Amino acid sequence: MSTLAEAVFRPKTIALVGASADLAKHAALPQKHLTQHGYTGTIFPINPRRSDIQGLRAYPKVSDAPSPVDHAYIMLPTEHVLPAVEDCVASAVRCVTIMSNGFSEAGEEGQARQETLLQLLAGSQTRLLGPNALGIVDLHAQVALSANEVLSLPALPKGDVGLISQSGSMLGAILSRGAARGAGFSKLVSVGNEADISIAELIEMMVDDPDTRVIELFIETIRSPEALRAAALKAHAANKPILAYRLGRSAIGQHLAVSHTGALTGNGKATSAFLHDIGIAELNNFEALLDAPALFRRGRGAGARIGVMSTTGGGGALIVDNLGERNINVAPPTPRMQAALANKGIHIGDAPLVDLTLAGTNAATYGAVLEEFLQSSEIDAVVAVVGSSSQFRPERAVAPILSVQSSKPVAVFLTPNAERSRQLLREAGVAVFSQPEACTDALSAWARWQVPRVHQTAGAKPVLPGDHQAGQTLSSADSQRAFAALGIPQAQEWTLPPTPATWDAASLDNVAFPCVLKISSADVPHKTEMGGVQLDIANAHELRSAAEAMLRRVCEAVPRARIDGFQVQEMVKGLAEVLVGYSYDPAVGPIVSVGLGGVLAELYQDVSIRPAPVSIDVARQMLSEVKAFAQLSGYRNLPLGDIDALAHAVARVSELARCTQPRVAEAEINPLAVLPAGRGVRALDGLVMIGDC
Amino acid sequence: MSTLAEAVFRPKTIALVGASADLAKHAALPQKHLTQHGYTGTIFPINPRRSDIQGLRAYPKVSDAPSPVDHAYIMLPTEHVLPAVEDCVASAVRCVTIMSNGFSEAGEEGQARQETLLQLLAGSQTRLLGPNALGIVDLHAQVALSANEVLSLPALPKGDVGLISQSGSMLGAILSRGAARGAGFSKLVSVGNEADISIAELIEMMVDDPDTRVIELFIETIRSPEALRAAALKAHAANKPILAYRLGRSAIGQHLAVSHTGALTGNGKATSAFLHDIGIAELNNFEALLDAPALFRRGRGAGARIGVMSTTGGGGALIVDNLGERNINVAPPTPRMQAALANKGIHIGDAPLVDLTLAGTNAATYGAVLEEFLQSSEIDAVVAVVGSSSQFRPERAVAPILSVQSSKPVAVFLTPNAERSRQLLREAGVAVFSQPEACTDALSAWARWQVPRVHQTAGAKPVLPGDHQAGQTLSSADSQRAFAALGIPQAQEWTLPPTPATWDAASLDNVAFPCVLKISSADVPHKTEMGGVQLDIANAHELRSAAEAMLRRVCEAVPRARIDGFQVQEMVKGLAEVLVGYSYDPAVGPIVSVGLGGVLAELYQDVSIRPAPVSIDVARQMLSEVKAFAQLSGYRNLPLGDIDALAHAVARVSELARCTQPRVAEAEINPLAVLPAGRGVRALDGLVMIGDC
Repeated sequence: MSTLAEAVFRPKTIALVGASADLAKHAALPQKHLTQHGYTGTIFPINPRRSDIQGLRAYPKVSDAPSPVDHAYIMLPTEHVLPAVEDCVASAVRCVTIMSNGFSEAGEEGQARQETLLQLLAGSQTRLLGPNALGIVDLHAQVALSANEVLSLPALPKGDVGLISQSGSMLGAILSRGAARGAGFSKLVSVGNEADISIAELIEMMVDDPDTRVIELFIETIRSPEALRAAALKAHAANKPILAYRLGRSAIGQHLAVSHTGALTGNGKATSAFLHDIGIAELNNFEALLDAPALFRRGRGAGARIGVMSTTGGGGALIVDNLGERNINVAPPTPRMQAALANKGIHIGDAPLVDLTLAGTNAATYGAVLEEFLQSSEIDAVVAVVGSSSQFRPERAVAPILSVQSSKPVAVFLTPNAERSRQLLREAGVAVFSQPEACTDALSAWARWQVPRVHQTAGAKPVLPGDHQAGQTLSSADSQRAFAALGIPQAQEWTLPPTPATWDAASLDNVAFPCVLKISSADVPHKTEMGGVQLDIANAHELRSAAEAMLRRVCEAVPRARIDGFQVQEMVKGLAEVLVGYSYDPAVGPIVSVGLGGVLAELYQDVSIRPAPVSIDVARQMLSEVKAFAQLSGYRNLPLGDIDALAHAVARVSELARCTQPRVAEAEINPLAVLPAGRGVRALDGLVMIGDC
Repeated sequence: MSTLAEAVFRPKTIALVGASADLAKHAALPQKHLTQHGYTGTIFPINPRRSDIQGLRAYPKVSDAPSPVDHAYIMLPTEHVLPAVEDCVASAVRCVTIMSNGFSEAGEEGQARQETLLQLLAGSQTRLLGPNALGIVDLHAQVALSANEVLSLPALPKGDVGLISQSGSMLGAILSRGAARGAGFSKLVSVGNEADISIAELIEMMVDDPDTRVIELFIETIRSPEALRAAALKAHAANKPILAYRLGRSAIGQHLAVSHTGALTGNGKATSAFLHDIGIAELNNFEALLDAPALFRRGRGAGARIGVMSTTGGGGALIVDNLGERNINVAPPTPRMQAALANKGIHIGDAPLVDLTLAGTNAATYGAVLEEFLQSSEIDAVVAVVGSSSQFRPERAVAPILSVQSSKPVAVFLTPNAERSRQLLREAGVAVFSQPEACTDALSAWARWQVPRVHQTAGAKPVLPGDHQAGQTLSSADSQRAFAALGIPQAQEWTLPPTPATWDAASLDNVAFPCVLKISSADVPHKTEMGGVQLDIANAHELRSAAEAMLRRVCEAVPRARIDGFQVQEMVKGLAEVLVGYSYDPAVGPIVSVGLGGVLAELYQDVSIRPAPVSIDVARQMLSEVKAFAQLSGYRNLPLGDIDALAHAVARVSELARCTQPRVAEAEINPLAVLPAGRGVRALDGLVMIGDC
């Protein structure tokens, strides 16, 4: 444990700044909680108006305390916080937690106050948790340094799950729910606004903490994606799974999170994609936070083939149906398993749910079937459902689960309220669930859980051709040149002057028909809406008259438009027109996206997103996640599209994340025509925006 | 209570057929449970090999019992069931429950056995629950007639929720979970295969039961939709909500349900649409079955505008985010509410989540805000979230919820494990949830909950033109005539002979160009795949050469095809091409569906379904549920489509449900071109299949 981690979680001396003697007040609670849960260090209540608080001598200021303070917990009204922090810095306090609010979450004034706060700390050895943070709990060291009322609980079970929460109150709620079912924690920490000590830094402390084996996050936003990626890699190397529950999955939830945290939250889907990318499993069910760690503690599987067995058809169906809704298909027992069991007189059939019924609800049958599942190389995890017998007769189907010797992940779902069985399983380290939704959410997160991806950035950084200014939006032609420089094939184009009357046979000699005609003018950004695009022009004669009509239309729509000329493009009819996008998400940084172009795809939000850059393999995974691309992959015998070329294009666009001269803020190819397999893709139009710095 | 209901739920005499003296056996449990829970009637254990069972005199057969038997519970091995039933019929037993399995759920042999069973009962006064049914519990009458092990619980709380379950084991699981949290039931019944007494009939018994105020179903399939609709109407008239949890929402779950119940389950979406249509609210969260009744007991709202208030930002966001994921938008406090509260010194702002924070966690503030929500005519239901204070200080934010005087639905979500507060709220009849998913699932079911729809069947039944045979698939031309007879506008068509060389100017005189050419041959059902359709033909010359090329192609693809001729159709370019379908679902009967045509819409399964027939208003609701139709309704300034004409077409197609001469098995218009607003729709192709009877 680092000295900072010691000061954060196991301070030998704690100053409670603004401590109260009135037990009805929140400011009295940290002292009460510390004492109640057996804190063995020294507490200095800080309050200039009292000499004695809850039986301890009080001091006017932290600097008045008779010995150095490791951790100061500040509960003062907002306006008194900064002087108290100044005093802490002067006294070389190692860690300050500020519970008070009124900082970056509170508008401009609060943001300014947070800036000042950081200036006070700059260059000092004092580190900060919060502000707007509710404190820390270290259950193995008996430190309960928080005003959260839930700490009034007489006993808090110890465990090996470390929880880092952006919501102080939900930290208490999770602790309380865990205590009710015997699900203990190692450490809990409320990070508030993360002005200084970040989630990433706390993850690293927990990676180093021998008491913590699984790390959980309750978050609303991500503030330092690269630090988080580095921390996730360390956790992975230390074999400690990280699970996250994230608020802001819906549009309105996202909106709330913004106002809540004062941070930009970016796009929720991008955040999910980011967590997935760095190997953090995202849970969507609140209760799963308590029950899932035991499942993840067993590690990832070779695959995600999940077998389901049950003593009750209804209870088994509940699980299978909920898995199906989460797009997890159940793996039926293999012929080999069936044969092995038949040798023991157990006949299970080949249905995906192995329903042993009442007749099979005994230790011998249940145990034999479970063993087969666990020994099969074609099954990666098992859900063991136990019905009514689990309530009063754990010896029948719960005992065999307890006695298996396998490190393969097992999730147990008990259909009745079977406290004793639940406790037996939990004590044995088996993941046990009482909600079918929590069980199947945990399994689906487990099935999707990948190892953190390390960006492959071989080769030279891409460079955009030409000179560009910060904040500039490139013209269509320059954008296409940029994509061409990335190695993305463009539809053939010819430039013609703005005077169709002067076009002679020679100037049209190279043009391949049929073709597309587009106006070229910086004053006409939305070409289609202004009548500046015409498709499927058959010959030179039609081209000339189309250009004349277009000039008239556009000049009517945009009277003073300067017309640079015309772009003539070969008419490419792809099997599909695709949108490949690159952008910089305010929460998680550069992302690449791909989906079908057009209104329908937009309505269905059928897009795959990843942190950029991505390899061709990852790009191919992305394509498999877009439902619409089934029509390029043999659905209903439709002709196959060139998925390889599309994956290549996505990977190349994602390389824009590496551009530094200049940086790219946003870019899209729209549309990218996907030709039949083997014939590639063609970018038909695109746009690049240069970043501000 | 009917005499049948008395015999089912409150029999004065019970025969336990196959009763065992060995308490380790399931066949011993009903007697143990009846005695343990205070059954006041007479029990006759039936077992030819014993004279005494668990202290009661045993009889060899039901007909040997010394007085008439109201309810016989049969637990014999399958092969002994039929003789026992025969004996019950001979003894005029009023109700027989068969727990034994091996009937319609067990393949052909079982189905035949169930047939024989029904023949035994025919004409008798003996009614049947099951087979494959686990029994009944009537908590107000101390009748626990079931082998479910959960009934070993020392005490079972009484309540006003009646549960009807197709899964016997899940009935026990639900009872056990309810008991653990003090959520009681009035009656519970396991219906098994529903060979005789149906869910519908049991609902009617519960409608008549003064102890039951809310009826719940745990179902896998629907076996008698019309009876269920009638029962739902009665429940509605008696002001008793019906809630359902349905297995089989996913494809694999549906598949399981089939093998489980031996019944055809049809399309899960059709079943959901049916439940919705008859005013049964469908829950998707298992736990909600226990917590939702108190919400529904307050009845439907004028609308579905839901306000959310909280003492904790994180806990409130958890609810708002989960509501958002279920497409329920939270209603922010109105200016009037804000003003009224400001007058009391409470400033809440206009964010959708009213977050009172720690500072507002007191009875005066919380109560005042809740009152405003409940009094507002612009709010139909309220979610009241209470954080940490609910665990140890219910007087702060829970007490004000208890003291409100309003019949408006209120759902309380407690973030910590707050048993005492939960109990106080439950006892006061307030819906209280500990899972955010259960809370928001219940609210979303409540928000969608409609009154049962009464089919409007005014006007004459539609009649298909022409003579048809059972099982016949009509030709494209006949199908289109059928849709025309329903009043759906068709694209103009002309018939031409199979010899393009003979087509002279006169025969093409009426044809309007551009047009579509289609081959007409009963031997070429998949015209498009065989090259038998060509679009966008500009003039008579092109038409003739296209026809000649088409003849060559088709005759090559289908060598011996008899060619009747060609259909020439005006080329209609709609804003969208829609699929309108009618079919007969094996579980719920006639349904009508509408969605966009084409591969993409199929991939996204973006279809709205309703039991047929539907009115134009309901058809319009259906259109609003199809995401793709946003593009006909002003999305991105796209031109408006003729939604009225489309709704009219859907309603007309749905009238096929009323056809009796002949009956229609399946029908679709594909595509139906939707023209710009005011210009109608045109059916371009269609298909009608006549039913078998």
